[in-house]
Amino acid sequence: MDKIEHIGIAVKDLEASNSLFAKLLGVPHYKMEEVASEGVKTSFFKSGPNKVELLEATNPESPIAKFLEKKGEGIHHIAFAVDDIVAEITRLKEEGFMVLNETPKKGADNKLVAFLHPKGTNGVLVELCQEIKAG
Amino acid sequence: MDKIEHIGIAVKDLEASNSLFAKLLGVPHYKMEEVASEGVKTSFFKSGPNKVELLEATNPESPIAKFLEKKGEGIHHIAFAVDDIVAEITRLKEEGFMVLNETPKKGADNKLVAFLHPKGTNGVLVELCQEIKAG
Repeated sequence: MDKIEHIGIAVKDLEASNSLFAKLLGVPHYKMEEVASEGVKTSFFKSGPNKVELLEATNPESPIAKFLEKKGEGIHHIAFAVDDIVAEITRLKEEGFMVLNETPKKGADNKLVAFLHPKGTNGVLVELCQEIKAG
Repeated sequence: MDKIEHIGIAVKDLEASNSLFAKLLGVPHYKMEEVASEGVKTSFFKSGPNKVELLEATNPESPIAKFLEKKGEGIHHIAFAVDDIVAEITRLKEEGFMVLNETPKKGADNKLVAFLHPKGTNGVLVELCQEIKAG
């Protein structure tokens, strides 16, 4: 895994959290994006080579709504950048990890993504993400 | 904040988790370190410019023991690298954040560290860390 691409933080009020994290990180968010299939609105901040993604639920069935209900606001997942997500999914399955998306899906921020079940990773929801290249 | 220096993950069994995260990240941990003042044993993995720190409690009063009891295994904190931790503490206090260590303390991995209270950061325990330079 090449680096921590981003950490994802579940928040109740994206607008208020955008303002809070701008103060924390010393830079404003540089984009917002809705991923309708996941029921989330997201915003992104840069921290050097890494990003912080804030996630607000857009409907009560959203995984983020369920996370907030169960655990409250806080760190939701950690995403690692990979060059070849299909090869990495194969490798991790062979190592015994529970891959939740055998076929990567389109995530926010122009990425192909797949998640590992936190039961197999000490309670950590791990996302793999690969930049979608043009052409 | 310059980058995500590391994420800290609370685990019950450091030895078992070292083996698990070596499989996950594709590299073994490169060092272990005990921080007696914090009641933790830690191990570190590299992921490009970032690190993953695993933390196991060494006594029942350790903040990690209390976290495990309350929330179970999972992501415990996110640490951002800063150049000047004293200036950053001053800046964040002025912005209204609850700084838990007004004077930075010695942490693992040759760092001066300070934490922000998660109540002021959407449930996220934020660590600031500055490399201790020789001389």
